[in-house]
Amino acid sequence: MTAALPSHLLPAIKQRETPAALIEALKALFGDRCSTALAVREQHGRDESSFTVPPPAAVVFAQSSAEVSQVLSLCHEHSVPVIPYGAGSSLEGHLLAVQGGISLDVSRMNQVLSLNADDLTVTVQPGVSRKQLNEEIKHSGLFFPIDPGADASIGGMCATRASGTNAVRYGTMRENVLALEVVTASGQILRTGTRARKSSAGYDLTRLMVGSEGTLGVITEVTLRVYPLPEAISAAVCSFPSIEAAVRTTIEIIQMGIPIARVEFIDAATVAMFNQHSKLTLREEPMLLMEFHGSPAGVQEQAELVQEIAQGRGGQAFEWAASPEERTRLWTARHNAYFAAIQSRPGCRAISTDVCVPISRLADCLLESAQEAQDSGLPYLLLGHVGDGNFHFGYLIDPDSADERATAEQLNEKLVRRALSMDGTCSGEHGVGMHKIGFLQSEAGDAAIDMMRAIKRTLDPRNILNPGKIFTL
Amino acid sequence: MTAALPSHLLPAIKQRETPAALIEALKALFGDRCSTALAVREQHGRDESSFTVPPPAAVVFAQSSAEVSQVLSLCHEHSVPVIPYGAGSSLEGHLLAVQGGISLDVSRMNQVLSLNADDLTVTVQPGVSRKQLNEEIKHSGLFFPIDPGADASIGGMCATRASGTNAVRYGTMRENVLALEVVTASGQILRTGTRARKSSAGYDLTRLMVGSEGTLGVITEVTLRVYPLPEAISAAVCSFPSIEAAVRTTIEIIQMGIPIARVEFIDAATVAMFNQHSKLTLREEPMLLMEFHGSPAGVQEQAELVQEIAQGRGGQAFEWAASPEERTRLWTARHNAYFAAIQSRPGCRAISTDVCVPISRLADCLLESAQEAQDSGLPYLLLGHVGDGNFHFGYLIDPDSADERATAEQLNEKLVRRALSMDGTCSGEHGVGMHKIGFLQSEAGDAAIDMMRAIKRTLDPRNILNPGKIFTL
Repeated sequence: MTAALPSHLLPAIKQRETPAALIEALKALFGDRCSTALAVREQHGRDESSFTVPPPAAVVFAQSSAEVSQVLSLCHEHSVPVIPYGAGSSLEGHLLAVQGGISLDVSRMNQVLSLNADDLTVTVQPGVSRKQLNEEIKHSGLFFPIDPGADASIGGMCATRASGTNAVRYGTMRENVLALEVVTASGQILRTGTRARKSSAGYDLTRLMVGSEGTLGVITEVTLRVYPLPEAISAAVCSFPSIEAAVRTTIEIIQMGIPIARVEFIDAATVAMFNQHSKLTLREEPMLLMEFHGSPAGVQEQAELVQEIAQGRGGQAFEWAASPEERTRLWTARHNAYFAAIQSRPGCRAISTDVCVPISRLADCLLESAQEAQDSGLPYLLLGHVGDGNFHFGYLIDPDSADERATAEQLNEKLVRRALSMDGTCSGEHGVGMHKIGFLQSEAGDAAIDMMRAIKRTLDPRNILNPGKIFTL
Repeated sequence: MTAALPSHLLPAIKQRETPAALIEALKALFGDRCSTALAVREQHGRDESSFTVPPPAAVVFAQSSAEVSQVLSLCHEHSVPVIPYGAGSSLEGHLLAVQGGISLDVSRMNQVLSLNADDLTVTVQPGVSRKQLNEEIKHSGLFFPIDPGADASIGGMCATRASGTNAVRYGTMRENVLALEVVTASGQILRTGTRARKSSAGYDLTRLMVGSEGTLGVITEVTLRVYPLPEAISAAVCSFPSIEAAVRTTIEIIQMGIPIARVEFIDAATVAMFNQHSKLTLREEPMLLMEFHGSPAGVQEQAELVQEIAQGRGGQAFEWAASPEERTRLWTARHNAYFAAIQSRPGCRAISTDVCVPISRLADCLLESAQEAQDSGLPYLLLGHVGDGNFHFGYLIDPDSADERATAEQLNEKLVRRALSMDGTCSGEHGVGMHKIGFLQSEAGDAAIDMMRAIKRTLDPRNILNPGKIFTL
């Protein structure tokens, strides 16, 4: 069981009628691919967030940009909300039909349309998942580095401006989307950007769409940057006497400009969850999990520098995982962190946080918040993409306990206030969705939110594109 | 003498009255810092483009965000255009008062406000120039890499989404601006972004403003990423038997993922202009001018790989410039290319092009366009940031010859059509301004331009922010 929306999010809810005529028109166009079956609607009416609201009135499975355009034209005509759906791995309530309407599932638009290996670009449909993409381009010696953990869809990753473990070196979706095809609220199909690596030709509509969470248009095609697979890759784990020592090591690595590809922090209790879930024997101490990409000599040089820094901070048991199998084992454990945590307290739900702060404030932010979490008595997961100043608590609550939920929400709120006071952001990579509407208001301020709302109203005058997300309107 | 606007740009001109009451109000507030002297207005009413239009009605020298806000409030009230002015180095007519109004000079807002060395960020006022910035942060061992050649203002570089020689490694203004303070059309001061390295918190207003050419707001503060000065830097020149050999070498470097910091192409005739202007003795053949950043071992490894690739393409006379003095001499020659070209034909003006194409099409695009330029009989400058697929012709025309101007514009138009047909962009880094309004329309298409116009109308309903630029309105 999950909870209904907390009261401060109620303004986002304005349940709207979905007229039978619209459903009929959609069924006429899409046949079986327009479903009103409760099971299908319920599956599309939730995500990894912990809220429940009524499911969408119908689910349409689109197979082309033209079909997406048809759905939007019809819904625009009827002023009915459209919620784009990719892999369903969103964490912040992005997929919830808080104002009713149609879930537009693009997961069947899953073709890799063209790989331009010479240009290091690939163009895909939005339903392609990141693992599928890497599988399909592997033969070319290229890879797409953005890795949020979950096997998210590329469209969804654009919509939430996702990042993850490799962002410290390769950037986020912000830096790696070159061009988009987008369908507007009224069903018009347009392109933003080109395959050129850079451009100063007009407003940056690509980056306006990236991170807009389906509220400004539906993404139907994505051109991405890809990278040559590194000649050499090496991963290492290193245990530390304290959280602070691990974080200070990270800060020093970044400040020295060492081009580390991944640097993940995992706290001691979370390492224990990994060991339990993935049958590993990692030392149950604060840990950095690192990866180095480059030429063989370059990787060795980076690793030696990092080892030296770590030792200066009391880092021990610097262990190498040079073989692909060992590396995969470690990263699989990292990616399964969420499930390992859930399993550690059967029946629990995780309330996830996502702040990101300037790296000079990372140790303070993390330590103060860890102390608070410990004092609360709630069990929690704690890990982070610390090279970017981004980390996540997952407070493991009993979903039936209003007290535990309230405690978790209070911890999250304190953490966000702390991050904002340190010139950080409430969301490093998960997006705003429903959950962070209030936090975004605090972070951006009224004038910036007004500007966002003005853009939304102009591009979606009937407020049909994923309404009730990012801000209330 | 320069030319009046060509006929296709006339729709951008809608001369508006600047009421005496507004000038009086500005004089009352700013005293001597509001000038109506013809010399001052004329100096602010032109840029490095080759158009002439009447100068602005007055020039206001603002010294704070609050003052910028005052100017905008007043101009908003009177529906009078405001044209932000930084260093005056724009190439595309951005600074021209095509609809009359006030030039808002922010060059006196030139303080480096805070350097956060630990976070690799710096916050500056918009009038700080890039050379000034690097001078002021040098003591910290950090540098700001974006280098468009001209000593542009940071505000202007944001406004045009500038890049330049280092972009192949460090990205452009798009990737390196973290946060902005912006004053809106009605005078409201707001902030976009934070000092966190990444964020998924709401619409990316920062990147909407970057590249908006003063049409959506006036930038009054900029937070930038800075980088540790590389431990080792090495520069090299290499001559090639043909343009094609030089370009194919570049393509191979990029496709191999070698993290070269700069790779500039210069054609033979342009090398001759360098030699003449900067008293150098470079071989007058197609040339690559390269720079490598990293650890001493890393730089050596990169350079060896590149040398091997170049030799495979017939590259000769690979010459090193390891000392800072030699490097400075070479890069100064590169940066003075424009002046070297102008000097090569006394009294001429340069019509500059700025296409950027996917790198697999670079050789074709460059070779076909070079042949066309040669066939035209016009002398020209030709060089490029080829690692990004971006290059510039500067057609050197007699400004009094309508024929030569027409020939240059035809060459530019053919070049842009060619780049667009190759999935490239009409503007890699100079922006749209006046000159490329038609090209942008071809590139982006009606639907995307309509979206840009809709955003403009919403954020600037009285069309006072640098009107007549990017698109007609």
